[in-house]
Amino acid sequence: MKFKAMLLGLALMPVLSVLAQVPVYLNADKPIEERVKDALSRMTLEEKVKMLHAQSKFSSAGVARLGIPEIWATDGPHGIRPEVLWDEWNQAGWTNDSCIAYPALTCLAATWNPEMSHLYGKSVGEEARYRKKDILLGPGVNIYRTPLNGRNFEYMGEDPYLSATMVVPYIKGVQENGVAACVKHYALNNQETNRHTTNVYLSDRSLYEIYLPAFQAAVQEGGAWAIMGSYNLYQGEHACHNKRLLKDILRDEWNFDGVVVSDWGGVHSTEQAVYNGLDLEFGTWTDGLSNGTRNAYDNYFLAFPYLKLIKEGKIETKELDEKVSNILRLIFRTSMASHKPFGSLGSPDHGKVSRKIAEEGIVLLQNNNNILPIDLNKTKKIAVVGENAIKMMTVGGGSSSLKVKYEISPLDGLRNRVGDKAEVVYARGYVGDSSSELNGVTTGQNLKDDRSEDELLAEALQMAENADYVIFFGGLNKSEGQDCEGSDRISLGLPYAQDRVIRELAQINKNLIFVNISGNAVAMPWVNEVPAIVQGWFLGSEAGTALASVLIGDINPSGKLPFTFPVKLDDVGAHKLGEYPGNKKELVTKHQGDTINETYHEGIFVGYRWADKEKIKPLFPFGHGLSYTTFTYSKPAADKKTMTADDTISFTVNIKNTGTYEGQEIVQLYISDKKSSLPRPLKELKAFQKVKLAPGEEKSVTLTIDKKALSFFDDARHEWVAEPGKFEAMIGSSSRNIKGTIVFELK
Amino acid sequence: MKFKAMLLGLALMPVLSVLAQVPVYLNADKPIEERVKDALSRMTLEEKVKMLHAQSKFSSAGVARLGIPEIWATDGPHGIRPEVLWDEWNQAGWTNDSCIAYPALTCLAATWNPEMSHLYGKSVGEEARYRKKDILLGPGVNIYRTPLNGRNFEYMGEDPYLSATMVVPYIKGVQENGVAACVKHYALNNQETNRHTTNVYLSDRSLYEIYLPAFQAAVQEGGAWAIMGSYNLYQGEHACHNKRLLKDILRDEWNFDGVVVSDWGGVHSTEQAVYNGLDLEFGTWTDGLSNGTRNAYDNYFLAFPYLKLIKEGKIETKELDEKVSNILRLIFRTSMASHKPFGSLGSPDHGKVSRKIAEEGIVLLQNNNNILPIDLNKTKKIAVVGENAIKMMTVGGGSSSLKVKYEISPLDGLRNRVGDKAEVVYARGYVGDSSSELNGVTTGQNLKDDRSEDELLAEALQMAENADYVIFFGGLNKSEGQDCEGSDRISLGLPYAQDRVIRELAQINKNLIFVNISGNAVAMPWVNEVPAIVQGWFLGSEAGTALASVLIGDINPSGKLPFTFPVKLDDVGAHKLGEYPGNKKELVTKHQGDTINETYHEGIFVGYRWADKEKIKPLFPFGHGLSYTTFTYSKPAADKKTMTADDTISFTVNIKNTGTYEGQEIVQLYISDKKSSLPRPLKELKAFQKVKLAPGEEKSVTLTIDKKALSFFDDARHEWVAEPGKFEAMIGSSSRNIKGTIVFELK
Repeated sequence: MKFKAMLLGLALMPVLSVLAQVPVYLNADKPIEERVKDALSRMTLEEKVKMLHAQSKFSSAGVARLGIPEIWATDGPHGIRPEVLWDEWNQAGWTNDSCIAYPALTCLAATWNPEMSHLYGKSVGEEARYRKKDILLGPGVNIYRTPLNGRNFEYMGEDPYLSATMVVPYIKGVQENGVAACVKHYALNNQETNRHTTNVYLSDRSLYEIYLPAFQAAVQEGGAWAIMGSYNLYQGEHACHNKRLLKDILRDEWNFDGVVVSDWGGVHSTEQAVYNGLDLEFGTWTDGLSNGTRNAYDNYFLAFPYLKLIKEGKIETKELDEKVSNILRLIFRTSMASHKPFGSLGSPDHGKVSRKIAEEGIVLLQNNNNILPIDLNKTKKIAVVGENAIKMMTVGGGSSSLKVKYEISPLDGLRNRVGDKAEVVYARGYVGDSSSELNGVTTGQNLKDDRSEDELLAEALQMAENADYVIFFGGLNKSEGQDCEGSDRISLGLPYAQDRVIRELAQINKNLIFVNISGNAVAMPWVNEVPAIVQGWFLGSEAGTALASVLIGDINPSGKLPFTFPVKLDDVGAHKLGEYPGNKKELVTKHQGDTINETYHEGIFVGYRWADKEKIKPLFPFGHGLSYTTFTYSKPAADKKTMTADDTISFTVNIKNTGTYEGQEIVQLYISDKKSSLPRPLKELKAFQKVKLAPGEEKSVTLTIDKKALSFFDDARHEWVAEPGKFEAMIGSSSRNIKGTIVFELK
Repeated sequence: MKFKAMLLGLALMPVLSVLAQVPVYLNADKPIEERVKDALSRMTLEEKVKMLHAQSKFSSAGVARLGIPEIWATDGPHGIRPEVLWDEWNQAGWTNDSCIAYPALTCLAATWNPEMSHLYGKSVGEEARYRKKDILLGPGVNIYRTPLNGRNFEYMGEDPYLSATMVVPYIKGVQENGVAACVKHYALNNQETNRHTTNVYLSDRSLYEIYLPAFQAAVQEGGAWAIMGSYNLYQGEHACHNKRLLKDILRDEWNFDGVVVSDWGGVHSTEQAVYNGLDLEFGTWTDGLSNGTRNAYDNYFLAFPYLKLIKEGKIETKELDEKVSNILRLIFRTSMASHKPFGSLGSPDHGKVSRKIAEEGIVLLQNNNNILPIDLNKTKKIAVVGENAIKMMTVGGGSSSLKVKYEISPLDGLRNRVGDKAEVVYARGYVGDSSSELNGVTTGQNLKDDRSEDELLAEALQMAENADYVIFFGGLNKSEGQDCEGSDRISLGLPYAQDRVIRELAQINKNLIFVNISGNAVAMPWVNEVPAIVQGWFLGSEAGTALASVLIGDINPSGKLPFTFPVKLDDVGAHKLGEYPGNKKELVTKHQGDTINETYHEGIFVGYRWADKEKIKPLFPFGHGLSYTTFTYSKPAADKKTMTADDTISFTVNIKNTGTYEGQEIVQLYISDKKSSLPRPLKELKAFQKVKLAPGEEKSVTLTIDKKALSFFDDARHEWVAEPGKFEAMIGSSSRNIKGTIVFELK
């Protein structure tokens, strides 16, 4: 006998609860603005202030009483940072937080493929969501102003249009997961040297034309729910509480309704933070130090000091309510979103996405005599040289450092692909950075090597002598001063003895391939001695697999450079005109201490705009990237000769694959203003399209622009101006390989 | 000019994603069983095994690849345990995890109010949900078999009907939050001494009549989504993998479809765990020790050892799929539930709930000369004595130890209430446990006191001499051996010099009130010397407030004892018949080592059933509790004289408040079988109702039962049997204060 109702007495108990009216802020059917208003109306002053600052390294308070969740942020942008302790930077030792590392954003930009960007954002967003994170601290879109900048690898290159185009789908992909993207670092954080004290001055024209478009697109097109202020100053005010950047531009001109987050420790003044548009203060400078009975975070600028000013009647609460509303809005969009997905972590699908982006972003810079791809049928021995062939590149570099589920090194990727078809031998070649704890190995090789420079070189040369191919994996390695947050490089040159080793290898073996692992341009004084050069970026978990695919020819490279490789530093505007890394110290306020002024004298002439103007031949130009196949461009045609301000104009060109490999070409449209009241760049990228072609296939590509593409920002009028007159559309395969031009007129 | 569509090129990008078909397991509109089946079909063998055991102290793996969340558990049952480190018991130092402490479950049981139980479950479930926990490790419903049991305070007393009635709404309240309740400790974990090695034997009749009903109600009426196996053995098999308990009874008889969780470290055999119904293994014995490349948790019984047996073909995967299905079902009910609420933490509402339950659970045991409540209008000085007046009681006791947002001590609660109406002075009275780090203060008093026993007593006596009232807060304190997980008490007596101090105080001041802070009965050899005795439990955050409310008379006490206070240990069946704590060691299996047999010779005669049978007068009987008002009971009436097996019978009695305070009375219905083929208890609780009455008010209370209330469990037939014949309904205000009886017949 089963007895299901043994406890009949229960039927006698009073009705336990009545269906309570769901308050508006908890009602997912109500518009977000109503919910924000309702929640705000229920909060005390103290609760409001508590929401404006960190409670731990990566979280800020919700309203526990009301069931409004905390905000948990995670570093990005290349993968989800492992859990750290509550109030220390040490990892917390969790075993569930290994992620897939995606290629660094420079590589994503090099794909010139918005679909890759969406896949990237969606995948990394899924990893953030699975790990219960509400804000992903990325992507970064600071413009590549100098190749020395230690964080260029986290950004999307030198061109505002390319960055703007690529950042939007990333943000949408992240936010589909109920995770806020936090675009960074807003704004003008274009170097790491003196990043806390550099005080930038520049013309409004260069601000609006070069440095802001990607941020504006992130906000207006991408709909970013958060943005991060940068460490530097602009016009004497720190970017994290800079009235012009945060109030005048971000809020008033762009109508941003998300949360302005400080970079960690980027706040320096309560008053400025209050009035100039910061919403949420995070920090680095508190490590469990408490002030008596108060939590250490209570001393943050937007914590007790703010509360005190309000209580003393020195500050009204209008700004407080605005800030809290912004934060509540983000919470309703993320952790409190109904039907938000559950994400996923470390899945094979994510591995495939990472690999696909890596394969599309690798740039074939030089391929003399078509020595690439390697033909394994004619190859008995491949000599691999260089520390970067075996070094973990997902660790290091600063806040973007990861704890990965796996990382395939270039050497292992090659060995996996080559299998028993050829012998793959390895020599380090030079004394590098093996001592660093940050750079462990994933593949079992012991990084320790106590041999001398000469011994290592001799071993490499001996190995290279009778190899069919020599592949040198060099470049930078994310240790300090080598593509790493917190410091810039000292010079454009390769570190360690790499140049010497490359030159010696080139003399001993004519089939030398140099793969540059970096997020930055490097000097290549031996460029004419090395037949094949590949830009290999920091490629993430599938680095070795993707590189092997390209080197062996399973994948035809299709990436194009998102920034110029200059021959030397002096070919860069920021260096030529001398104001890098800043040259004048001055005391801005007593709070801020000494700052170092840096005026962007080069103005709008950044990257290829500078090289064009100065007629400098770059080592490799912006937009450059070769293929294993060849493409021909037909003469371009326009749909009209004259356009109006309300009109668009379209240019069509036929692209044909004339080689033997399937391949992708990135067709680029640059615009040149033939006559202007203000100086203009010789050309500016205004449209592009990546097109895939089978051997012999021909496709028609149409690129359309409107007057925005013809406009410059007029400082005096504070608006975008497209001056009637003649323009030239330049269609090409790089900024220095224009295949055809068409002159047209704006009425 | 604002420009919203600057980046026209975006319009040209290919469609980024197509709306993918949502897989069944992610489709909240699909029935859970379909989702479980679909998810299971996508999982690898390794992923399945990985879900069956802990990955950290309180979490187990999901399927990150598929976006199936991890499970995060938290200790309960009195509040949400603070975050601990990944693989260590130390607190993680988070500052967002302070909770409201609710009264211990003994107090909840003492309210005899299912509505309080629902409020309790709902509130603690909200705190768990806010802290993103998926399983609350509670409530506990092990039967109170001996007053020495160190964990009795976490359970609901000695009576199966009361426990069963009270556990159901708790579970429902928790689970409304999308948090699984995990009923514990299943089963027969009735003592802490030798808890890992005690091997219980008892008759099926006592198992089914006494020890299982609360678990069965939790499963069948409460719909508990999880249950925790206990540490002890039953019939030679550990409870965490006991075929009879988990397969025959829980799954086959009760149709449980939730997850069987092991107590932490309660698993001892892979084969038994596989075949005998355990689903999820948690542990204590792994502290970051890894075995080479494997995570330490891989060595758990349901980890690699299980996987190995499957891979070697020694075990089929039928059980594996059942276990994983059970776990997936829980995940779909909790973290993956659509529309689950967000919870809340530490809210004033939760504080009010905690206080309300405390106030309803406090039991007025004795009130000679009506010295309570304290009349502040006639009081100038109140002397408070005893360490428990100032000691933190939310910390300690084992796994139920908490980190509270606040805790109001009895002394502070009293001082807050009394204000300046009288002087409240304090003396410790005896040397207690002040050295323990676990017992800090919330209220600023320094617990350190180096004075001698005599000095402390002298101070207390001097203070008491000219006080209007002396309140001694004594009892136990959750340190080892005093209501604490892991060890039982040594004796029934009060620890330290409490008895001496109480006797001396009683001699010096006739208005002595003893408040017993405990979750257990204690001996009171001075009971006739102390006019007022209050059972004060462990009351949680609002302890002092609730106690002051009752002592001052803002709240009229309405709790009744959920267990018997015996005069001495020998009055308890488990002690009288000698098999406590077990008396015979034997080797059960080589895995399990020595076990200690313990036969429950007292059988069904537990608590008042024993005292009734043996005609022992308790110190305070089960169901006892006084009020500041008085109630009269009318002669009860039945709606029929004869009932059938399919029928119910109702008893009605009029209760009148004949005093001057509003009050609540708990009307209790006991059933007595006048003639039976098997020995039966003299009476058994089968219904009750708590009724609130204003002074002079009279209400009619009807209690209805069916034949279940008349049944006993017949071992031989393995079924519940209600034998036709005469029964007596006994209606009273306690098990020893029967106000009226009615004889009726079952046809």
